[in-house]
Order: sequence, then C-alpha cells, then structure tokens
Amino acid sequence: MKEIGQKAKKAAKILSRANTAQKNEALHALASLIDAEQELIESENQKDIDEGEKNGLSEAMIDRLSLQGRLSGLCSDIERVAELGDPIGEKYDQKKLENGLKITKQRVPIGVLGVIYESRPNVTVDVASLAIKTGNCAILRGGSETIRTNKVLVKLIGEALSRSGLPPEAVQFIDNPDRSLVKELLHLHEYVDLIIPRGGAKLHQFCRENSSIPVITGGIGVCHLYVDKGADLERSVEVVFNAKTQRPTVCNSLDTLLIHKAVAAEFVPMAIRRLKEAGVSFRFDEKSWNLAGEKERKAGQKAGGDDWSTEWLDLILGVKVVEDLGEAVEHITAHSTGHSDGILTPDKDSADRFVSDVDSAAVYVNASTRFTDGSQFGMGAEVAISTQKLHARGPMGLKELTSYKWVVEGNYHVRK
Amino acid sequence: MKEIGQKAKKAAKILSRANTAQKNEALHALASLIDAEQELIESENQKDIDEGEKNGLSEAMIDRLSLQGRLSGLCSDIERVAELGDPIGEKYDQKKLENGLKITKQRVPIGVLGVIYESRPNVTVDVASLAIKTGNCAILRGGSETIRTNKVLVKLIGEALSRSGLPPEAVQFIDNPDRSLVKELLHLHEYVDLIIPRGGAKLHQFCRENSSIPVITGGIGVCHLYVDKGADLERSVEVVFNAKTQRPTVCNSLDTLLIHKAVAAEFVPMAIRRLKEAGVSFRFDEKSWNLAGEKERKAGQKAGGDDWSTEWLDLILGVKVVEDLGEAVEHITAHSTGHSDGILTPDKDSADRFVSDVDSAAVYVNASTRFTDGSQFGMGAEVAISTQKLHARGPMGLKELTSYKWVVEGNYHVRK
Repeated sequence: MKEIGQKAKKAAKILSRANTAQKNEALHALASLIDAEQELIESENQKDIDEGEKNGLSEAMIDRLSLQGRLSGLCSDIERVAELGDPIGEKYDQKKLENGLKITKQRVPIGVLGVIYESRPNVTVDVASLAIKTGNCAILRGGSETIRTNKVLVKLIGEALSRSGLPPEAVQFIDNPDRSLVKELLHLHEYVDLIIPRGGAKLHQFCRENSSIPVITGGIGVCHLYVDKGADLERSVEVVFNAKTQRPTVCNSLDTLLIHKAVAAEFVPMAIRRLKEAGVSFRFDEKSWNLAGEKERKAGQKAGGDDWSTEWLDLILGVKVVEDLGEAVEHITAHSTGHSDGILTPDKDSADRFVSDVDSAAVYVNASTRFTDGSQFGMGAEVAISTQKLHARGPMGLKELTSYKWVVEGNYHVRK
Repeated sequence: MKEIGQKAKKAAKILSRANTAQKNEALHALASLIDAEQELIESENQKDIDEGEKNGLSEAMIDRLSLQGRLSGLCSDIERVAELGDPIGEKYDQKKLENGLKITKQRVPIGVLGVIYESRPNVTVDVASLAIKTGNCAILRGGSETIRTNKVLVKLIGEALSRSGLPPEAVQFIDNPDRSLVKELLHLHEYVDLIIPRGGAKLHQFCRENSSIPVITGGIGVCHLYVDKGADLERSVEVVFNAKTQRPTVCNSLDTLLIHKAVAAEFVPMAIRRLKEAGVSFRFDEKSWNLAGEKERKAGQKAGGDDWSTEWLDLILGVKVVEDLGEAVEHITAHSTGHSDGILTPDKDSADRFVSDVDSAAVYVNASTRFTDGSQFGMGAEVAISTQKLHARGPMGLKELTSYKWVVEGNYHVRK
C-alpha cells in the first residue's frame, strides 16, 4: 500500500502541472478506448454478473454492477467532463496590499484522492475522469463483486494516460480483496490527501472513525418535505410524488412527508391516493393514520422503531402531521441527515424561517428534493454529495476537487 | 464530555441565528469586562506564572503564558474583531437555472469548534471572539499550566454572552486536566464539527491520528528562501535577515536558506556576517561550509541528522548551496512542511516555475516568509494557519470559519 501511495504522490506532481489540452487528450483517449473495447468490457462485466447471480445477489445489486448496454453513456459522460472548463490555475481574490505586496489565490489540485466504493463500476470511470480533469491522482478501491470489470477499466484508464504522455499511476486500483487494505489506505496520510467514501452509512462511519486522512462524508439522505398551511395542495402532491417516486433508490429521494395539521385532513388521503399509483407504501404517525381512509391505511402501517431516521431507498414513505412549522423544523433537526429538506408554502416568512432554521446541505422552497445533484445544479459533474460542513457541502463538482495556494509577490519586501 | 457536546450543539443553534449587532454586543461586553477585571485576571495569571516558575518552566514558556501588561492589547484585538464584517448570511454564487429554479449559496457557521491548545491564554480570548463573530460555538481545551487564567477568562466570556442575550454555553472550557478527555473530545463527532489544534507537531499528529472529527492541521513551518542567480544580493540579505530574525519563534520564520551556486561564493559570507549580528547560528552543507570564512564557520557547524527537516523556532538557520532552481525545488519538496517558501529572483520565468512547482500554502516571490499571517494578508484576524489542502489553506480568518448551504427556490418544480 505504501508503494501505491508513493507512486500516486509522484504521479500527482506531474498531473498537477499537466495543461488542459493534455488532460483532455487523456479523457478523449479513454472514451475511444472504452468504445473500442466494448466487447471485452462487457464480457468481463458479464463474468462479474454471473458470479453475482451464483452468489445470490439481489436483482437491484446485479443492476448496480451491470454495464451491459451502458458503455456509450459512460463514454459521453467522459466527453462531457472534457468539455468542462479546467479550474486548475485559476487566479482569484487578487489584491494589492498597502505595502505593495501583491497577493493572489491560485487554484491547485488537492493531490491524491482515495476513493472507496461499492458495486457500481461506472464510479471507476467517473472518478478517474474527474480526477484527471482536475490534475488529481486517485487510488481506487472498488467492491470485490465487480473486480473483473474494474480491472479492465483501470487498464484502459492507464493506457489512455500513457497515450497522452501522463503517468498511468495517476489512477491506481487496489485489486486485492483483503479488507484490511482499506484500513491501511485510511492511514496513508503521508501520500493521500482526501478520502471519499461512496456507499452506505456503515462505510462512511468506518472511514470517519478509522481514517487519519480527511474524509468527505455524505451521500446518505433522510430527506423531508413539509407541506405548510396555505400550500397549493394539488401541486404539492406532484412535488411529493416526484421526490418519492422518480428514482426512489437514490440519496436525494424523499423519506418523510410532514404536513401542517390545517391541511392534513385534505392532503393526507390525496397524497396517499396519488403515491399508491406508483406502488408506494407508508409509515403513518397516529394522526395521519386516523386521517387516512380505510383503503389507504392498507397501503401502510403505523410508524415505529427507527422509521423516522431511516433512509428508505425504496418506495416507502413516512407520513406525519405536525402542529406547525416549528414542529416540522424540530422533526427535521432530530431526524434529517442534513442532505436535502424542503418546504412547500406560499408564505415568504415561513419559507425564510425554514431556510434559516433547517441546517441541511440543500434547503428547498417549493421544489422537489430530487434536484440535489451536480449536473442539476449546473456544475457539470459530481464526484460525491457532501453532508459535512468542511471543505464542500452538497454536490461536489470539479471546483470542489481543488484547493488553492497563496502567491505573494513583492519587491524584496520585509515585515516591519 | 458528552454533556458538554450537547450543550454546545444546543447553543450553536442559537448562535447561528444571532444577528450581527447581538454578536458585536457580546464582543464589546467582553472587552469591557476584561478591562474592568484587569486586576483579577493579572492576579490569577500571576499564580499560573508562579507555579510555572516553581515547576521549572523555561523563560520562553513563562513568557508565553504571561498576560501581565498585555490585557489592553487583548481588548483592542476583540474590538477589532467586532469591527470586521460579519460573513454569516452572505449570499453568493446566485444563479437561475434554465428550468427557472433559483439557486443561492448562503454562508453559515460551521457549528461547534473544538480547539486544543497549549500555554498561551490569549488564544482563549482570540478563539472565543472569532467564534462568536462567526456564530460558531467553541469547546476549548487549554494547557494545564494556564488553568487559572483560562478559568477567569472563560467566566468573563460567559458573562459577556449572557449580557447580550446569548447562551454562555457557546464557549465552554474543559478545566479538568485529565488528558484522556482530549481523546474523548476528538470522538464527539455527534456534536463537534471541526477540531483545530494549536501547538506543536506532536499535538497535530495526535489529533490527526485520533480524531473522528475533521481536523485542520497546520502551524508547523519548515520554511525556505531560495536565492536565485541574478538576485539583488544586498536586498536579498535583508529579506533573509527579516525572515530569520524578526520573530524567530513563530511558524513563518525562516529555517533553511538555499543559494544558487553562481552567487554562493559572494552571498554565503555576506549573509552569515549580517545574520551573526542578530546572534544567528548556522547549519552548513558541505559547499556553504567551504565558502564560509574561518571566522564565519565558528558561528555554526556542519548540518547533520534531521537538520533540514527541523522547524528551528530559534536563531538557527540551515544553509545549503544548490546547483540550480530544480535542486532548490527538490530540496523544498523533500523538507518543507508546506507552510511558506519563497524565491528571490529578478527572473520572471524562474519565479513562475518556482510558484508552479512549490506546493506550499504560501509561495513567495521576492518577499520575506514572515508575511504569512491573517492580519498581514488583510483578513483582519486569524484562528490558525492551515497547511492542509482541505477546506482552507494558509491563514484562516472569519470566512474560513464558515460553511454554506444551498438554497433552492422554485415554483413547485419537479425533476424530469
């Protein structure tokens, strides 16, 4: 592992100085190589799928690790990253001090990223292309269930780097399934500047508790929408429907619906009827249970246990009636993971109070939580969604994979 | 410790919503209280000093923990923080997406800061005032050798907060000297958002290796100046003199002087003669040893062991002759802590190459390294100097104690 770290650190020096054209060349080369080697990739991926099926992985898991028919999409993602502006070298916050010193912040790569992820092999290519574009190096640790797919992808990434005169060690892959290596990776602070876990809550917790390198935690969303009194109920139903059902397996999908008591009698049955169309089932609090009709209740059960703190990642929705905005905020404060939470209201004061009091990476007024996403936010791409407050919060795009240095220019200046 | 964490978290909610006037009121109140209680503070501080002397602390250490005659300076520092602009609530990077969604980043406090420091009790007041100004709460862990001074200061901070209607728990102090509490603090990730160690390399390392909370490491400077061929040697001597002697005990003071071989024969004896005036002693490499005169050599010795990687914090300077800019950068890459490094050169290309290749928080062209400092950089104040690349690099002022949230406003928008 130490050797991997040293190689990465060495490559990082070269990558940090690579110019935009060279980095884009590597990205174009990668897209062509993936396109040319489609058959090989799909056949290796099929072996991973076969083994997964033999090992009894769920259909959802198999879907996550499959690249079948998805390679052209992957290639256009890479091309899109090539088209984005290069943040490295950007000068900003320039100022001239009274003593004549010129101070400038200059954007630089972070250095070496350690990325630990599960199943989806497209992450290998996503992270590699974002890293290359930002002059960063990456040490990747993917799940063992996609080891064959990842190996061939990483080989192609290395080839693309070589073809454009960049060191193939800029993107390395740990192909030894030994789990103790993850712990070793988390202690390579001499060589690795940032750990980005992409996976479930347990992985994030493990990284936070075992890493001597800064970790960006996030990607876990217990998300809320609060329907305030006075909200346009018909349109609110559609926002809730979108937030819950458009892609229920992702972190920005809705987990709990909070409803002001003044509109609950009308809204609860309305929302249930609409959501049932998509097969949603419910976890009701006492009040919403009482407001749901006999038929609606059958689509759910009373909430209990950890239901309010559960990220469902599925067609399940918690439903709770609250006294007022204050109780809604209190519930969110107690149960939100600080990812995406919103209010549906016509009232400017309520919206302002919600925005000020809810401490989440993305706070919504009259919109679906599903928008928390790098490309939706106009950032072009996304390496992760941070729910911590250090460095970057919310979607992390290219700029969030950079740091800066202070450049100070003088004329033989001395401090008085 | 958990209780301290809970109290801080609760107070953080209130502090984050406090308006600028209220926060400034607390700062003014603190300055008045310190002014009014000068006698009490000085007498408690004297007890710490007496005990330190009894325990055989060095003169430098005693000086670090003394507040005698320094309280009016402390008060004006607080008033200066009150005068600075309040970053909280600032809206930036606003954009309207094609679909009509309005997206704004809004600056928010980080939350709860854990600050672990040694000896200097003015840190207690510095950190408290920067935290209050930025709506953050702080849990302070000061050194046991200033426990009496810190206790009275924290009491006054609490009183100032109360007087302005803010919770006194916004700034808490761990007055139990038990060292295991530091480790506990480093694991309060449920309540504490950021750890800032202020002290020696060992403290930073301990925090990095034992914390499940993000840590800002820094404040350790093995700093270099490289005198390029063609540099104005007389003025270079003065820059080196300033960087080494103006305040040798701080992190941005010079540790190693690198000299291009083409100017070494002239510059080495010149620099030694000037620096000897201030009592500097030297660690010479083979070449500079040979270039130093018989008399100059007596002010130093040949470098050995870890000399090139040592932060001297004293009137000692490493001196090394290099082949060229490349070797200078190589030496810096191998030995710098990434704090402050500079080049003295008339040549634009050399300067550009140095700035691009030296990966330090502050990179200087023709200026003393002593400028790396929040107030020198026009930031008004400084809570720490970061040498890591995450979140903030270099001097950390008010803005660096903030995070942001994304505020997304729509008209019942759904994702397509």
